[in-house]
Amino acid sequence: MPTWYNRIAGGSLERLAALSDGIFAVAMTILVLDIHAPAKEAIHGENDLWLALGTLAPRLLVYLMSFLTLGIFWVGQQTQFNQIAQSDRHLTWIHIAFLALVSVMPFSTSLLAEFIGFRLALSLYWANILFLGLILYVSWRYAAHAGLVEDAKTEIRCAIERRILIAQSLYALGALLCVVNTYWSIGFIVLVQLNYAIAPRFKPFSRL
Amino acid sequence: MPTWYNRIAGGSLERLAALSDGIFAVAMTILVLDIHAPAKEAIHGENDLWLALGTLAPRLLVYLMSFLTLGIFWVGQQTQFNQIAQSDRHLTWIHIAFLALVSVMPFSTSLLAEFIGFRLALSLYWANILFLGLILYVSWRYAAHAGLVEDAKTEIRCAIERRILIAQSLYALGALLCVVNTYWSIGFIVLVQLNYAIAPRFKPFSRL
Amino acid sequence: MPTWYNRIAGGSLERLAALSDGIFAVAMTILVLDIHAPAKEAIHGENDLWLALGTLAPRLLVYLMSFLTLGIFWVGQQTQFNQIAQSDRHLTWIHIAFLALVSVMPFSTSLLAEFIGFRLALSLYWANILFLGLILYVSWRYAAHAGLVEDAKTEIRCAIERRILIAQSLYALGALLCVVNTYWSIGFIVLVQLNYAIAPRFKPFSRL
Amino acid sequence: MPTWYNRIAGGSLERLAALSDGIFAVAMTILVLDIHAPAKEAIHGENDLWLALGTLAPRLLVYLMSFLTLGIFWVGQQTQFNQIAQSDRHLTWIHIAFLALVSVMPFSTSLLAEFIGFRLALSLYWANILFLGLILYVSWRYAAHAGLVEDAKTEIRCAIERRILIAQSLYALGALLCVVNTYWSIGFIVLVQLNYAIAPRFKPFSRL
Repeated sequence: MPTWYNRIAGGSLERLAALSDGIFAVAMTILVLDIHAPAKEAIHGENDLWLALGTLAPRLLVYLMSFLTLGIFWVGQQTQFNQIAQSDRHLTWIHIAFLALVSVMPFSTSLLAEFIGFRLALSLYWANILFLGLILYVSWRYAAHAGLVEDAKTEIRCAIERRILIAQSLYALGALLCVVNTYWSIGFIVLVQLNYAIAPRFKPFSRL
Repeated sequence: MPTWYNRIAGGSLERLAALSDGIFAVAMTILVLDIHAPAKEAIHGENDLWLALGTLAPRLLVYLMSFLTLGIFWVGQQTQFNQIAQSDRHLTWIHIAFLALVSVMPFSTSLLAEFIGFRLALSLYWANILFLGLILYVSWRYAAHAGLVEDAKTEIRCAIERRILIAQSLYALGALLCVVNTYWSIGFIVLVQLNYAIAPRFKPFSRL
Repeated sequence: MPTWYNRIAGGSLERLAALSDGIFAVAMTILVLDIHAPAKEAIHGENDLWLALGTLAPRLLVYLMSFLTLGIFWVGQQTQFNQIAQSDRHLTWIHIAFLALVSVMPFSTSLLAEFIGFRLALSLYWANILFLGLILYVSWRYAAHAGLVEDAKTEIRCAIERRILIAQSLYALGALLCVVNTYWSIGFIVLVQLNYAIAPRFKPFSRL
Repeated sequence: MPTWYNRIAGGSLERLAALSDGIFAVAMTILVLDIHAPAKEAIHGENDLWLALGTLAPRLLVYLMSFLTLGIFWVGQQTQFNQIAQSDRHLTWIHIAFLALVSVMPFSTSLLAEFIGFRLALSLYWANILFLGLILYVSWRYAAHAGLVEDAKTEIRCAIERRILIAQSLYALGALLCVVNTYWSIGFIVLVQLNYAIAPRFKPFSRL
C-alpha cells in the first residue's frame, strides 16, 4: 500500500506536459548554440565566408538529425499523453527519466558533430535514441497496466507499441551500418526520420 | 488511408502552441547572449566604457531586428492558431519545421552581427526570414485544405495569405538592396518590421 | 479602420502570458550562467576555494538584485493580465517590447557585475528598470483606454498606476545616489525591492 | 490591512506554475551544458575517445544527482500546488525565492563537479538542497495558515510536512558523511534520491 504522500504526488498530467514542452524547447534551441559563426580574423572576403560556412555543413547535418530526433520523440510523448487520462507518481518519474535523456541530447549531438567519423560517438548517439524509445515503451506499458489510459481502442494501443518497436529496429539497423562507415549510419537514420516526419503515402512504407 | 498511429499522432494544438512559445522564448532570450560586456582589462574609466559600448551599437541593431523578426512570426503563428480548431500530424510537422527555422535564427543573427558588411551573411539572414514566411504560408494553406480551420470568413483567410505575401515581398526588396550596401538592407527591413509592429494608421501603409 | 489582419492578430492573452513566462524563466535562469566556478588551477585547498568564492560576492549581490527585479516585473505583468479580459494586436506588441527589455536584463546585469563601480553601468541598469516600468504603465493605460480591462474597480485601476509611479520614483532616487557611490545605489535599490517582495506591514511603508 | 495593490497582486496559481515549469526546464537542461565534448586535438582514435569520456564520469554522476534533485523538488512543488486552490502575493514571493534557489542549482552543480573532493563545494551543494526544502516547508505552512489549501485531509497535510522533514534529515546525514569523504556523501545522497524517485515497495523504506 503506497504511503499518503505517494498517493497524491505527481498527479498533474498538465504540469508534466508543461515541463516536457519546456525541456524539449530548451534542448531543441541550444542544439544550435553549438554552431558558431566563423572567427572574424580568418575571413577577408565573401569567398572566405562561403568556404568557412561550407566546413559547418556536417555540423548542420547532425543538428538537423537531432532536431528531427527530438521532434519525433516530442510527437511520440504527446501522442501517448493524448490517450492518458491522468498521471501518478510512477508515470511522472518515468517521464522525468525520459526528460533526462532529452536534456542529454545536445551533448550527444555535440559529441557526434565533433567526432563524426568515430564509431563510439555514433554508438552513444544511438544509445541515446534507444533509451528514449525504451522509456517511452515502458511509459505506455505502465500507463496501460495502471489503468491511466482512457478507453483507447485496442488498435490504438497496439499502434503505439508497434510504432516504437519498428522505429527502434530501423534505428538499430542504422547504427549497425557504422561497421561500414558512420556516414552511412547518419544518412540512414536521417532518412528513417524524414520518413516518419513526412509520412509518405507510398504503399511499402505506409505501415511503418 | 493513414495508419492508426498517424491518425492519432500530434492532435494537440495546445501542446504545439506550448512548444512553440517555449522555443520562441528561448530563441528570443539567447539572442542577447551574443552581446558580451566589454573585457574589463581594456576599460580604465567611464569614457573607455562609453567607447566600448559604442562599438556594440551595430550588434544591438541586429539584435533588435531579430527580436522584431521573431516577434512578428510569433504573432503570425499565433494568429493562425487562433483560427485553427485542431491539429493533426501533418500540421504538427509543418510547425516543427517552422520551429527549426526559429531556433536557427540566433545563429543567423550572430553571423550577420559578426559579418555585417557581407552580402552572404545578409542573404542567409534573409533566407531564414523567407523560409519562415514560406512555411507559415504552407501551414495556412494546408490547414484550410485539411478542414482544420474554424469557420473563418473568407476575408480572414485572404487577409492571412495576403499579409504573408506582401511582407515577404518587402523583405525580398530589402534583401535586394544589399546590391547597394548591406546597411541599406538592414535599415529597410527594420523599417518594414517596425511598420508591422506599430501598425501606423497612415492611409498609404494601412493596407500592408 | 484597421485591416482584417490587424483585427484578428494577437488576440490570445493566454499565449502572450505563456511567451512571457518562458522569456522570464530563461532570463531568470541564465542570469546565473554569468557566475562561473573558479578556475581549478588556482585552487589548491579549501581555503583557496573560500577566498575565490568570496570574490564572487559582489556578482552574487548583483545577481540577487536582478532576480528580484525580474520577479517584481513578472508579478507586475501578471497582476495586470489578471485584470485584462482579452488582448489585441497593440497590447501584444506593447508586451513584446516589454519582453525585449526583459531579455536584455542579463546583459545589463553582466555589465553592472563586471563594472560595479562605474556610473555608466549603473545608469544603464537603471534605464532598463525605468523602461520596464514605463512600458508596463503604457500597457495599463492602453488596456484601460481600449476597453480590454474587465470591470475593475477604480481603486484597482489607480492602485496599479500608483504602484508603478511610486516604485519608479524610488528607483530613480536610488540611481541618483550614484552621485555619491554606485554601491549606495545598489544597496538602496535592493532595499526597495526587498520591501516590495516582502511587503512589510509597517505603517510607514504599507502604502508604497 | 493590505493595500489594494497587494490584494490583487500575484493571484494566478496557473502562471506561477508556468513560470516554475519554465525555470525548472531551463535549469534541468543547462546542467548538461557544463559537460563539454573532449577537445578534438587530443583525440587520435577510438581509444582516446573512450579514455576522454571516462574522465567525464564524475561530472556525469554529479549531473545525474542534480537532475534527480531538481526532479524531486519539481514533484514536491507540484504536489503542493495540486492541493492549493489559489495563490496570493505572499505565496507568489515564497515561490520566487524557491525558484531563485532552483536557478542557482546549475552553479552549485558546476562547483561540485569541478571541486568534487572539496568539503566546501559539497556543503554549498547541500545548503542549496536544504534551503529548497526549507522554503517548500514554509510555503506549505503559509498556504495552510492563509487558507489557500483546498479541503485537504489531515493525513495529506501531515504527509507533505513529514516527507520534507524526513528527506531533509537524510540529506543532512549524507552531507555529514563528508567528514569521512565527499564521495560517500554524494553516493549516499544519490541513493536517497533514487529511493524517492523509484519509491520501492520494500517495507523498511516504504514509509520514508
